[in-house]
Amino acid sequence: MLVLRDSAEFVESLKDGRTVYFKGRRIEDVTTDAFCKTVVAHLGLEFDIPENPRYRDLVTFTPDGKTSYSRYFKLPENSDDLLKRSQIIDLGTRLANTVVLLIKEIGTDCLFTLNIVSKQMDKQLHTDYFNKVKRYHDYCMKNDLAMAVAQTDVKGDRSLGPSEQEHEDYYVRIVDEKSDGIVVRGAKAHTSYGPFANEIMVIPTRALSEKDRQYAVAFAVPANTKGLKMIMSPFGGTTSSEFHNPISSQHHMVESVTIFDDVFVPWDRVFMKGETQFAGSIALTFVQYHRFTAISYKAPILDLLVGAGISMAQMNGIVGASHARNKIAELIRYAETVKGLTKQSALNCRIVEGLAVPDPVYSNIAKWHFASNYHKHVALVQDLTGGLTVTGPSEEDLRSPETGPNLRKYLGAKKGVGAENRLRMINLVRDLTASDFGGYNEILQIHAEGSVEASKLTLLREYDAGKCVDFARKIARISSVAE
Amino acid sequence: MLVLRDSAEFVESLKDGRTVYFKGRRIEDVTTDAFCKTVVAHLGLEFDIPENPRYRDLVTFTPDGKTSYSRYFKLPENSDDLLKRSQIIDLGTRLANTVVLLIKEIGTDCLFTLNIVSKQMDKQLHTDYFNKVKRYHDYCMKNDLAMAVAQTDVKGDRSLGPSEQEHEDYYVRIVDEKSDGIVVRGAKAHTSYGPFANEIMVIPTRALSEKDRQYAVAFAVPANTKGLKMIMSPFGGTTSSEFHNPISSQHHMVESVTIFDDVFVPWDRVFMKGETQFAGSIALTFVQYHRFTAISYKAPILDLLVGAGISMAQMNGIVGASHARNKIAELIRYAETVKGLTKQSALNCRIVEGLAVPDPVYSNIAKWHFASNYHKHVALVQDLTGGLTVTGPSEEDLRSPETGPNLRKYLGAKKGVGAENRLRMINLVRDLTASDFGGYNEILQIHAEGSVEASKLTLLREYDAGKCVDFARKIARISSVAE
Amino acid sequence: MLVLRDSAEFVESLKDGRTVYFKGRRIEDVTTDAFCKTVVAHLGLEFDIPENPRYRDLVTFTPDGKTSYSRYFKLPENSDDLLKRSQIIDLGTRLANTVVLLIKEIGTDCLFTLNIVSKQMDKQLHTDYFNKVKRYHDYCMKNDLAMAVAQTDVKGDRSLGPSEQEHEDYYVRIVDEKSDGIVVRGAKAHTSYGPFANEIMVIPTRALSEKDRQYAVAFAVPANTKGLKMIMSPFGGTTSSEFHNPISSQHHMVESVTIFDDVFVPWDRVFMKGETQFAGSIALTFVQYHRFTAISYKAPILDLLVGAGISMAQMNGIVGASHARNKIAELIRYAETVKGLTKQSALNCRIVEGLAVPDPVYSNIAKWHFASNYHKHVALVQDLTGGLTVTGPSEEDLRSPETGPNLRKYLGAKKGVGAENRLRMINLVRDLTASDFGGYNEILQIHAEGSVEASKLTLLREYDAGKCVDFARKIARISSVAE
Amino acid sequence: MLVLRDSAEFVESLKDGRTVYFKGRRIEDVTTDAFCKTVVAHLGLEFDIPENPRYRDLVTFTPDGKTSYSRYFKLPENSDDLLKRSQIIDLGTRLANTVVLLIKEIGTDCLFTLNIVSKQMDKQLHTDYFNKVKRYHDYCMKNDLAMAVAQTDVKGDRSLGPSEQEHEDYYVRIVDEKSDGIVVRGAKAHTSYGPFANEIMVIPTRALSEKDRQYAVAFAVPANTKGLKMIMSPFGGTTSSEFHNPISSQHHMVESVTIFDDVFVPWDRVFMKGETQFAGSIALTFVQYHRFTAISYKAPILDLLVGAGISMAQMNGIVGASHARNKIAELIRYAETVKGLTKQSALNCRIVEGLAVPDPVYSNIAKWHFASNYHKHVALVQDLTGGLTVTGPSEEDLRSPETGPNLRKYLGAKKGVGAENRLRMINLVRDLTASDFGGYNEILQIHAEGSVEASKLTLLREYDAGKCVDFARKIARISSVAE
Repeated sequence: MLVLRDSAEFVESLKDGRTVYFKGRRIEDVTTDAFCKTVVAHLGLEFDIPENPRYRDLVTFTPDGKTSYSRYFKLPENSDDLLKRSQIIDLGTRLANTVVLLIKEIGTDCLFTLNIVSKQMDKQLHTDYFNKVKRYHDYCMKNDLAMAVAQTDVKGDRSLGPSEQEHEDYYVRIVDEKSDGIVVRGAKAHTSYGPFANEIMVIPTRALSEKDRQYAVAFAVPANTKGLKMIMSPFGGTTSSEFHNPISSQHHMVESVTIFDDVFVPWDRVFMKGETQFAGSIALTFVQYHRFTAISYKAPILDLLVGAGISMAQMNGIVGASHARNKIAELIRYAETVKGLTKQSALNCRIVEGLAVPDPVYSNIAKWHFASNYHKHVALVQDLTGGLTVTGPSEEDLRSPETGPNLRKYLGAKKGVGAENRLRMINLVRDLTASDFGGYNEILQIHAEGSVEASKLTLLREYDAGKCVDFARKIARISSVAE
Repeated sequence: MLVLRDSAEFVESLKDGRTVYFKGRRIEDVTTDAFCKTVVAHLGLEFDIPENPRYRDLVTFTPDGKTSYSRYFKLPENSDDLLKRSQIIDLGTRLANTVVLLIKEIGTDCLFTLNIVSKQMDKQLHTDYFNKVKRYHDYCMKNDLAMAVAQTDVKGDRSLGPSEQEHEDYYVRIVDEKSDGIVVRGAKAHTSYGPFANEIMVIPTRALSEKDRQYAVAFAVPANTKGLKMIMSPFGGTTSSEFHNPISSQHHMVESVTIFDDVFVPWDRVFMKGETQFAGSIALTFVQYHRFTAISYKAPILDLLVGAGISMAQMNGIVGASHARNKIAELIRYAETVKGLTKQSALNCRIVEGLAVPDPVYSNIAKWHFASNYHKHVALVQDLTGGLTVTGPSEEDLRSPETGPNLRKYLGAKKGVGAENRLRMINLVRDLTASDFGGYNEILQIHAEGSVEASKLTLLREYDAGKCVDFARKIARISSVAE
Repeated sequence: MLVLRDSAEFVESLKDGRTVYFKGRRIEDVTTDAFCKTVVAHLGLEFDIPENPRYRDLVTFTPDGKTSYSRYFKLPENSDDLLKRSQIIDLGTRLANTVVLLIKEIGTDCLFTLNIVSKQMDKQLHTDYFNKVKRYHDYCMKNDLAMAVAQTDVKGDRSLGPSEQEHEDYYVRIVDEKSDGIVVRGAKAHTSYGPFANEIMVIPTRALSEKDRQYAVAFAVPANTKGLKMIMSPFGGTTSSEFHNPISSQHHMVESVTIFDDVFVPWDRVFMKGETQFAGSIALTFVQYHRFTAISYKAPILDLLVGAGISMAQMNGIVGASHARNKIAELIRYAETVKGLTKQSALNCRIVEGLAVPDPVYSNIAKWHFASNYHKHVALVQDLTGGLTVTGPSEEDLRSPETGPNLRKYLGAKKGVGAENRLRMINLVRDLTASDFGGYNEILQIHAEGSVEASKLTLLREYDAGKCVDFARKIARISSVAE
Repeated sequence: MLVLRDSAEFVESLKDGRTVYFKGRRIEDVTTDAFCKTVVAHLGLEFDIPENPRYRDLVTFTPDGKTSYSRYFKLPENSDDLLKRSQIIDLGTRLANTVVLLIKEIGTDCLFTLNIVSKQMDKQLHTDYFNKVKRYHDYCMKNDLAMAVAQTDVKGDRSLGPSEQEHEDYYVRIVDEKSDGIVVRGAKAHTSYGPFANEIMVIPTRALSEKDRQYAVAFAVPANTKGLKMIMSPFGGTTSSEFHNPISSQHHMVESVTIFDDVFVPWDRVFMKGETQFAGSIALTFVQYHRFTAISYKAPILDLLVGAGISMAQMNGIVGASHARNKIAELIRYAETVKGLTKQSALNCRIVEGLAVPDPVYSNIAKWHFASNYHKHVALVQDLTGGLTVTGPSEEDLRSPETGPNLRKYLGAKKGVGAENRLRMINLVRDLTASDFGGYNEILQIHAEGSVEASKLTLLREYDAGKCVDFARKIARISSVAE
């Protein structure tokens, strides 16, 4: 038996009275609004994939041998589970033409995290979080829910901690405690797909000190919960033509500022309440899973940069030129370095509380390598493509009887390519790298799933440098030294 | 006496029946069309600058002590002329918020080129081009015209020369010669501001061999000449709000594909006809001037990257963080390296046929440095700015009574900054680096005024490596060696 | 039964009358010459490793379940064989303090190559090379021989092919054919450890065209063969003190110019004779194995750069400084990227003629990454170490009663470190990176096992770009196009 | 009249009983010791230059129109003085085959500094330092002395200030004050050419706080002062053959650890005593001059990298290969960027207390650019040179009748070059980049005259970022904001 919703069921589930704003107005129904419809159609892909027999085995799992669920919900136990998880993230993103779907990925990153940290808390503090987490996990799995995670607080002055800000609400906090639950207030930035999820999960964004007790809170609420407002960002998307924007006219990633205006959360959905000493554990464990998700969904865009770069070099007749060959080799090297290190992260996983956690050394190096080299490789593709990327004509000019014949004659490039094919590939490059969507991609690569600085910190913390230091001392013939 | 048009005269001069296409339709009047109006207003700045007493002395010159013209037309005789030229290019671009005006710059780059090469041709071939060039120069200067230069042929298969293409017209060529002039056919790509210029000047894009005689052609025609079609590119611009796009909503650079459909050119406007051996000279001399123009108009965008980067770091409260300080130092280094080398190019100018030509070693190194590092420094600014660049709310959300108070409370960052100021600066960064306009900028930096590969070639050709080789041989104690 | 020689047997085997020159004189016995003795002691490590029970299982294999040989000789059949091979290369190099031993590695790289290509030749040309190769492989294995490979011809003018040179002998060639074998003439450069090997194997260095038939030759000769001269390079080594040069005073890699002065080779040692169409296959297959060897033996030096960098930062008291942390993170990232990609190369191996060949995409990216970033990371370690690296005192000054107490007082750095320990670590860094040996390392990283340009070529040839191009076309909605 | 010593007088002046140690023994006379003799001969060049009529005008100045002194002593008043100073630094270094002479440069950097800061101290504190500095300046100038500057304290734990160290003497300090002067104790590292100078000048290495009063000391002593010990470093030099080490066998830069064992300094040679608030001014002003010296003496090595790179590409027959051309273009770009920015530093000088101070923005960017790219460009030259750099034969092998003919035949490369010429150029590259001396160069580029981190700090402090921030705010339409 397959316990999976189809895309129609997913769409239907979004008609629940949620409070979403866009460009200054309230969106009554995200499934009918012109802009949101494109996002919903894009996300529907996630639910269509298991329908395809070609993919079904990969994207589902059958814990009891009878009932099958989305594989995203499978608690990873070993390298193989992580490799398969990486593959399904890649698959979904590839089918969505490089725009990650993320409504399963990030939520399960968070569920795995809560699974691990709740066990740790229960052990050390004799709390009873693990069972709540388990029930909630089952609930999401059995209803095949779409999930968003609101983690990054709006932060105010970033040089100050939660308690030191101009006002108390720069980090989400507990403002009241009742017999049946808690009341939370604050705002989270950058919530991916929040307005299109069934569940919004909330976790701390950083380690907290004792005085930040009210900020140590983790919970989940349905998207239509009272007091929850989501203000969608208008940037990075477009509703222009498929010809001009072959990707972004069909696929949107959407973020919101997510506001908790004194939202009530019942006890069974509260996964942390004041345990400041574990806030950092949640933030860090989540990051271990989430950066692995991040590097897994980069594979399609990496392949596309390679493919577009080669295609343009071929079309322009420069594929044999030394400088073009160099650029193509660089693109391949970039793509495969990230992909190879991603696999190493799965293969070198660590077992924590029974769950396989991707190796943070390799995942953070992969992330760092990707993020710190993205713009450089975008430049290579833009270079191979040519200035026509932003000086060329529109589709309408190509179709016009007055200008079309001129353009077809003059923009033909290498024999046999044809102006239309060339402009299509050029448009792909512009859409991907030199447009509102291209700009969105650049910002995403730098900021999503933690900055390069964050990756360096994790790397320094997680790397076993002792063996290297010992090797150096042995060769230097140093017996003992203070550190 | 000041022989300069004001912006109203400039606008009026564009109502001349020119053939311009945009998004599939013919633009009847570029001064009234909604999109074009913004470009015209932007370019009008060029004509307003001399009206300002603060700038007048800098931007004009008075060859006979009585009549003053735009300084752009001054034939450079020494370093000081080039330094001043660099300053007026910087000034215009700065007043246009980093979007270069270019309707004087590029045309005079071309006039200087023709001035030099016509003298060379006349000397060697006993032609009479120089006097024609001089008359044309005077004509442009005395009428204070806006000029565009159409140089880059559409090229077809770039691995093949003009005569080897699938059809003969991939490079502009002479198709007929009449008693009173020539007839030309072909198309040029990337013509900046062609639809907004009074004059379109055409020169060869590369060195030519003897068999390419029909392609060795240089000339100028008024923008409304019969058979001349300009198809404007729709990319890189926007008509969105000033709040969301503080630069690109006000300033557009526009390129066209410029088609010569059997255009007649009278003899007095023909500056090269079949002299293949000088096609390369024109292309190269033009490039010496034009790359100097290029590096001169980069100064404002370099300063803006520095200023925006620092502002965002201050607003976000991270200006004291080590990683932020590093990024700011990198931005400063980048900006000042390009600016310092630009000055060196003027200071080390060469005198050719009585004209000061910017030193190509320094101008090409400056260009290379700028172009090959632009994306990297964009990434630094994006990094300092934060993810909100593409996940933040719209102006309408900020103004809405329903969401505005929430946003002002939560997006405030460092005390005293305020959400609105922060969003304004964030929007500036997005507009400049992560939008259709930002993409336009990236492509421009890579492709305009010649690629990095072209700069390397020029550098290798122009550098006096002999003194270095001699120094190496002297130290290695090598007396003589075949090369 | 263990069929392995110990180091004494190895040493003994080198007393065979071979013709070796060093600094202008003939070395009568490489086992007694002062400089050569150090090399012999260093290489002896290779034969001592299997004696150590801790390593024996790893470094041997037992094909028939009874007799054990050096694992180097095992024909790799799968990823696991390649991973183990990588481990034993790492182990030997690590025990030799980062200086690769190579007298088993490179010879077996060559044997695997001949194994594959001889099968291909026999299939296509009906020759009988494979059996000869097999017999020779067995001979080397059963006698546990030390092998060198002379591949790189001296090349003359590198822009010309073998037949186009000033004289015919710039590439090793067959000058005569007799009833019992062939006579070869020419010279090979960069032969690693030739003067310390039992066998010298020779293969072509590049693809050859039909007219280069005499250059298509592969063979093996004992090191003391008549007419074989090896001129050892004096560079990169030192005989200075262990304190000043903790690595290079104990471990030397040595290369020679290897001259074949009409050397006779009997038929059973000739593995290619005129089959020009397979010269490229040998060169390329060898490179697949040899670059995998290369990236495998880099792991210890990578770890040492990390370890030395961290140690110096600790000793100098800057380990908490932001810039130092950045440098350490960069070093870790560098090391682990190369190591991770090396493992991927084994894991993605290809099976050719029954043998596992390391994936050339990952091995070449690893090689390229290592080689193109080595100097940069050396600079990071030098930066963390300080100027004292080349301005500090000698061991004699430290031991002198006149200056020792001063130096111990003033060069102490962080409390508890002590001047002597600090100077030891500084000396390690200087020896590794800023000395004759450090210079040797830099050149080695750039040139050994093929240049970065060679890695790019291989990558472009071996990469399956089709899937990326298809992905780009699908998204761009291009159905078919000429290429 | 020319008041300049010749090299014989310089040599004679060094026989003064100074206390110098080298490799564990006291050097009785630095002019006769085998190793030191080479250094003395090298430094003698400085005194031979003015003897050459070709250089005399440049390297001298005549303040009163009658008596001429070394131009080094001229207090710079404007850009032209700084440009000339840069030229004489370049000239001396070039004549010494890239090894800077420095016995005039650094001392006058220090004299200019004391000139400025003494005026500032006198004004603010009503001290009388300026007259002492002036008398000392005249003394050095009129006796044409060789000077060394001991600035960098040994520092101990670099994370701690002078007063916080394990013992009080990690920074040079005043231990006693007498009626006729002060007594100082401590040690300075990296003193260039101390053992070969007439005067040792001492200044603070950093800004100091009030509690560091005893460390705020500046003074000068003759090199043979009692209690002054100099321990010479043995690294970076060689006494090998001119053929193998064409530069380093003839030219040595030498540093010492300089120990002040309770050295007495009379009042007229004390230039700071306890004025902690000006310790930073001295350190910073010195750095402004000294970094300008640094970038000025880099020009010859930059030219040599270009010249050696091109020569090797020519000799190897690869000068037309695309990858080689790229590398050569990179080398030229590197060299000219540093040289161009150096000139800008002089041209943009600031006037402080009547003296021209090189613009720190450009000098620090030039320094940063040089230091952070040196290793990369060394790698390019090594790449163009080939592996033979460390695998080739010795001079003795080339001269030997047994091996010489073989080597001349086989190592010939491009027709007409010849093995000997090629080996000479290869040896130059190895000596310069891949040897003890090459390692010395690498360390020097990173650490001498302040690290890259120090350059960044200076840049951030000295840059007028306000104009950039204002530009960004104007475009973003932000009126006022807290910072």
